[in-house]
Amino acid sequence: MRLALAAAAAAFLSIPVQTGPVRAAELPEEARVHARALAETGLESDLAYRLTESLTTEIGPRLAGTPQEARARDWAVEMFNELGFENVRVENFPMDLWTRGYSIFEEVAITHPFPQELYATSLGGAAATPEDGLEAEIVFFDSFDDLLEFDGADDALEGKLVFVNDRMTAARTGEGYGWANRKRTLGWVEAENRGAAGLLIRSVGTSSHRFAHTGMMSFPAQRLPGIPALAVSAPDADQIERIHAMGETIRVALRTHAGWRGEVTSGNVIAEIVGAEAPEEIVIIGAHLDSWDNGTGALDDGAGVGIVTAAARLIMEAGVRPRRTIRVVLFGAEEVGLVGARAYARARMADGTVDQHVIGSESDFGARNVWRLSSGVGEHAVGFFDAMQGELAFLGIERGGNSSGGGPDMIPLAAMGVPMARLDQDGTDYFEFHHTPNDTFDKIVPEEMAQNVAAWAMFTWFLADSDMDFRARPEAGDAEEGEPAQ
Amino acid sequence: MRLALAAAAAAFLSIPVQTGPVRAAELPEEARVHARALAETGLESDLAYRLTESLTTEIGPRLAGTPQEARARDWAVEMFNELGFENVRVENFPMDLWTRGYSIFEEVAITHPFPQELYATSLGGAAATPEDGLEAEIVFFDSFDDLLEFDGADDALEGKLVFVNDRMTAARTGEGYGWANRKRTLGWVEAENRGAAGLLIRSVGTSSHRFAHTGMMSFPAQRLPGIPALAVSAPDADQIERIHAMGETIRVALRTHAGWRGEVTSGNVIAEIVGAEAPEEIVIIGAHLDSWDNGTGALDDGAGVGIVTAAARLIMEAGVRPRRTIRVVLFGAEEVGLVGARAYARARMADGTVDQHVIGSESDFGARNVWRLSSGVGEHAVGFFDAMQGELAFLGIERGGNSSGGGPDMIPLAAMGVPMARLDQDGTDYFEFHHTPNDTFDKIVPEEMAQNVAAWAMFTWFLADSDMDFRARPEAGDAEEGEPAQ
Repeated sequence: MRLALAAAAAAFLSIPVQTGPVRAAELPEEARVHARALAETGLESDLAYRLTESLTTEIGPRLAGTPQEARARDWAVEMFNELGFENVRVENFPMDLWTRGYSIFEEVAITHPFPQELYATSLGGAAATPEDGLEAEIVFFDSFDDLLEFDGADDALEGKLVFVNDRMTAARTGEGYGWANRKRTLGWVEAENRGAAGLLIRSVGTSSHRFAHTGMMSFPAQRLPGIPALAVSAPDADQIERIHAMGETIRVALRTHAGWRGEVTSGNVIAEIVGAEAPEEIVIIGAHLDSWDNGTGALDDGAGVGIVTAAARLIMEAGVRPRRTIRVVLFGAEEVGLVGARAYARARMADGTVDQHVIGSESDFGARNVWRLSSGVGEHAVGFFDAMQGELAFLGIERGGNSSGGGPDMIPLAAMGVPMARLDQDGTDYFEFHHTPNDTFDKIVPEEMAQNVAAWAMFTWFLADSDMDFRARPEAGDAEEGEPAQ
Repeated sequence: MRLALAAAAAAFLSIPVQTGPVRAAELPEEARVHARALAETGLESDLAYRLTESLTTEIGPRLAGTPQEARARDWAVEMFNELGFENVRVENFPMDLWTRGYSIFEEVAITHPFPQELYATSLGGAAATPEDGLEAEIVFFDSFDDLLEFDGADDALEGKLVFVNDRMTAARTGEGYGWANRKRTLGWVEAENRGAAGLLIRSVGTSSHRFAHTGMMSFPAQRLPGIPALAVSAPDADQIERIHAMGETIRVALRTHAGWRGEVTSGNVIAEIVGAEAPEEIVIIGAHLDSWDNGTGALDDGAGVGIVTAAARLIMEAGVRPRRTIRVVLFGAEEVGLVGARAYARARMADGTVDQHVIGSESDFGARNVWRLSSGVGEHAVGFFDAMQGELAFLGIERGGNSSGGGPDMIPLAAMGVPMARLDQDGTDYFEFHHTPNDTFDKIVPEEMAQNVAAWAMFTWFLADSDMDFRARPEAGDAEEGEPAQ
């Protein structure tokens, strides 16, 4: 009876209903054969690897809003045109520029009790120290929660440097990152509200190397930090921890030049393969062009640029247009707060095409093998992804859950109801390199890039050659119970 | 007959002859039992680990000739006294100070064709750039040999930056280091002789991280470099190599502040366990106190300081004085050209005690497990070390050859005929960290330190409780053939 009602509701909404057990038959034989052929070609392709090499070598670091990021857009436009993409264009948007200052290096040192230089990096959005620097005592917090719960005297942190020592744990899913990142994004607010002169945190990430992990802070209520905020490399944080454990008062001197430099222009670079039957229906696959300033952004996200571009190019080369349009978007200004992704979503609201985005996905988690296919689609479409996983299994890909957000630059679209899916990469060592100078091209394994391209080519083909509406819809049960269908 | 003659020669020289197959009996039962007990205690001891922690935390980097190195001497004197060593003293010596300048960071960037900052470090002894820096074209040499054999026009390198791209291969013995290091030690001479404005080399070492390996250059005929000379991290050298392979002319700008700062004082710190029966006979075990300026010198050579000190302390704690004196020497100014080791040897020539050094050894190759016992002794004494290896085998230690030089700080003594031996450590990943900021305490595994201490305690005990003369001596065969006995 529930099924009958669901069918009635579906008829009302003019949407085909998927029922019954998972069947490979959800994917037409023709699509499966074509996708497999794409994958076989992808496994032999070095295009993604070569594109990433080119971007990271010929542009290198490309901080959002800088001339380097503008050069990356020029590079992308030329590259898309050379590869034969259609409708290649740049959508510019304004943004506020933040830079570290004179150099990728910061001057930070313990001055008492055991003078020595530390390796540290300003967090994105931080203020500079006074021109001559500042020196202050550290107040040590073992965790961000300890800082949140701090109930010392009102002036206990006045003029001090707050140090937060949380450690991140490595995981294939990267799931430790969000928790460890709280001190990075919001530590400054807690420190500044208590009168601190600055914030130092143990570098987020899992590296044992002497580079600290940078990254943007959050700015609740548009408030910007008035204090310097830096991450200290793990071995240097160990040093602070050991000296603190000896019961010593630790004084640290720092001199930084970070700050906001006014409004500049960034942009998203867009390229398409126009669909044969339903060109207005858009499968959006993305990556981001910008990177942090300290590395060459090979894993984050040169690899993604290479992977999604190469996958689309494989589809183009195979000579069969998909039913729908495949739109590749290389977002600008991701690292500094999804500025490009928000601009893209706003532009689609303005031109009324949000609902034409039938599904979205981004590659932005390094260059290791894809190990899992996750979806974030209506319940009726879960079987479609189950079937797709069956096709991807020969690449070592498992089935994930149905709560994927598609990737960072997909967040604004997902918030507007665009369905999402994702090819999850192995992130076990991603945070060894992420947001540090060690994010360079030599960390990429060509065979792993090719596995990504094979998976993305199949995935993109299945999505683009389908006529399924992946959007969430009223559940049969909901309709049965008379709830509003929205 | 040869044996009879050898015995006759030995009788003439008043030296006992070792004959026959390797026997454990070369090591008295009492010594073997005591050594084994020392090892068992050593495997449970964290003293070496704690000493290294203390030195690297409380002093940190300790470049030769700086106040930090002087603090390390104070630390060592206090530590030796606290641990109950005898005859604790410092022997000062003069040296010429070289420093990097304002910071551990250097300003180096590609300016053409693809502008980006590079991670690089001045090599020890290098000159500074002009105050405003310099910018020049790179001339790319795939290897140091290519530079040596360069037969371009006389002025082909005039005003250019010579880049040398040799790669080092990792090995348990570290054997790739010497070859790869030629460009570091002598590249500047070849570049400067051809009129180059500076030298850049691919970082020596095997790290894929973005820190370049520093280290002292060589100064043939006391000549000092008039040009800047820097190592570029491996990923940055890759970048230069890729751009060069594209056929592009590469221009690099650099600004460095390195230079010689005049004469200063360094010193060797000496401590002893005085021998019970032959206190004038000295078994010297060493390590070096100084480190490079960019790391905290945990592997090079904080670990060695911890290991030899803890091994000697174990022997002291066991309550049985050895026959001979055990002298622990923590050398100063090793990294900048064995300045402390040479001063020690000169002082022993002056006081006439070189020949009282019956054997020497140094721990200066990181903190990984000892895997091999090597010797550098007279042929008659090889069996003694064969037998010792039998005792060390339970620690996973093999027998090496008989050509060991004992370690870097032993070179001057070895040159004066002092016999040597060495407990070779696994160096497979040593050059991932060596002479970079990544040489920090977290890289040390406590259990591996304890294995070292156990091995060193046995080794030192066997040497110090023996009455064997390990010096090379006339071979029986030589005598038989009437060659001069020297």
